[in-house]
Amino acid sequence: MIEPQIPEIVTHEDVMFFDTDCGGVVHNIAYLRMIETARTRLASNMGMDLKHMSDTKLFPVVTRTEIDYKRSAQLGDRLRIEGSLAKLQRVRFWVEFRMYRESDDALLITCRQSLALVQMPEAAPQRLPADWLENYRGSDENRE
Amino acid sequence: MIEPQIPEIVTHEDVMFFDTDCGGVVHNIAYLRMIETARTRLASNMGMDLKHMSDTKLFPVVTRTEIDYKRSAQLGDRLRIEGSLAKLQRVRFWVEFRMYRESDDALLITCRQSLALVQMPEAAPQRLPADWLENYRGSDENRE
Amino acid sequence: MIEPQIPEIVTHEDVMFFDTDCGGVVHNIAYLRMIETARTRLASNMGMDLKHMSDTKLFPVVTRTEIDYKRSAQLGDRLRIEGSLAKLQRVRFWVEFRMYRESDDALLITCRQSLALVQMPEAAPQRLPADWLENYRGSDENRE
Amino acid sequence: MIEPQIPEIVTHEDVMFFDTDCGGVVHNIAYLRMIETARTRLASNMGMDLKHMSDTKLFPVVTRTEIDYKRSAQLGDRLRIEGSLAKLQRVRFWVEFRMYRESDDALLITCRQSLALVQMPEAAPQRLPADWLENYRGSDENRE
Repeated sequence: MIEPQIPEIVTHEDVMFFDTDCGGVVHNIAYLRMIETARTRLASNMGMDLKHMSDTKLFPVVTRTEIDYKRSAQLGDRLRIEGSLAKLQRVRFWVEFRMYRESDDALLITCRQSLALVQMPEAAPQRLPADWLENYRGSDENRE
Repeated sequence: MIEPQIPEIVTHEDVMFFDTDCGGVVHNIAYLRMIETARTRLASNMGMDLKHMSDTKLFPVVTRTEIDYKRSAQLGDRLRIEGSLAKLQRVRFWVEFRMYRESDDALLITCRQSLALVQMPEAAPQRLPADWLENYRGSDENRE
Repeated sequence: MIEPQIPEIVTHEDVMFFDTDCGGVVHNIAYLRMIETARTRLASNMGMDLKHMSDTKLFPVVTRTEIDYKRSAQLGDRLRIEGSLAKLQRVRFWVEFRMYRESDDALLITCRQSLALVQMPEAAPQRLPADWLENYRGSDENRE
Repeated sequence: MIEPQIPEIVTHEDVMFFDTDCGGVVHNIAYLRMIETARTRLASNMGMDLKHMSDTKLFPVVTRTEIDYKRSAQLGDRLRIEGSLAKLQRVRFWVEFRMYRESDDALLITCRQSLALVQMPEAAPQRLPADWLENYRGSDENRE
């Protein structure tokens, strides 16, 4: 029996000036841009690369974000973003992210997002691909 | 007996090119920038204006965001953001936002955020101002 | 004889956290977002509003930016952006902007940009509207 | 006789959703964020890394940007940014960038920026490091 794989991704970011604000730390919105980069690479691993999206106009659209800011990063910090597919539903899927500071492995951010596949420009939500359910829906956590 | 006031704010935004992405609608992160503008004006109404923050380095820092994307806005849409203080705790407070498209009053976004007052650059969380509790903690909803 | 009008615009911005970086001042890129807002309102005055662009997919596209950073703005500063049409060519037009800090009228930024009207998604540059040449090309400065 | 080295950098970016706008191509401001990343890595090669800046509060500040938009990039394009030190003056230095689309090597963007080293929070411009002049000022182009 084949164990289903949970799609996962690890990305890295160096904190730039444009990520920070005058409080001296990374601005709360900048983390979400870094998470989008990780999410896009995760989607690419699941068969949805950007070029394909650009051609088909079938886009994954964020429908909910929950993000907890635990510790803050500073200019020059190297960050590690770990992401994974968390749950598949009929027309939505959930992804989860954790961001760490590389220097001391401190957990800075936890985030979960739900997404729908939406056909643009009609903005029509589509069912998730059948092979996602087959390939990724093995764990109890995903059976929902 | 004086009824305590719930601090509230209404702001407006016109959707610009920089708010949109190639899906043809407003990018999910752009709404959070608009919400930050509303949140900043709400904080100003509660006695924390930007100039004062800039001088004292006592900043309201977002500790959690929950945002639901219900409908999407497009280039040129005029948006109305309604915000209010939702709850006061000892070192955190919660604010809530709802974004509407002005043309048809469609509800696009609901969002709640918790914030802490943090003294920079030490990053030391401070108690909320005593007068906030007196002025704003009248309603049952806030008694927590 | 009717004097041709030079299209002009004045907009205002309050410096928000997301505009600043850890240097304690407004980030160089944030000024360009503010200038885009002014430019969009200027275009609207010239008959190109966002809703119209969104429908026709005829967009003004920046082909060159020159920006000089003279003084910097800080959190909470109120800024005034003055913009005007500077020159009309056959397929390009130039706009100019000056940004001031309201509190002391200090000049912070000067900027000029050239734009082309581009029909998307073919990305085909179009001639400027004939009535622009009639209405706006009166001054010597624009006769080029 | 030792040939002076011209500091150079090459970076890469994949075009993400947040880089694009509803015109279907990369937004003009997004290229400047990519250029900032390249510029920061170039500065790091010249001995000014972000951690060092964060500690000393001696920051390179953009004083002028000139950018020409020649062709546009789209979602999923892989971009190559080539940067180099172009000229050293007493209190300013110039850097130049060229952006290419990897798939067909098309030149998309040319950009030059002048920067000053500024001691924050006093905002006092500093002379360029003496060793920069020694190490990098060999070429005729830089003798100015």
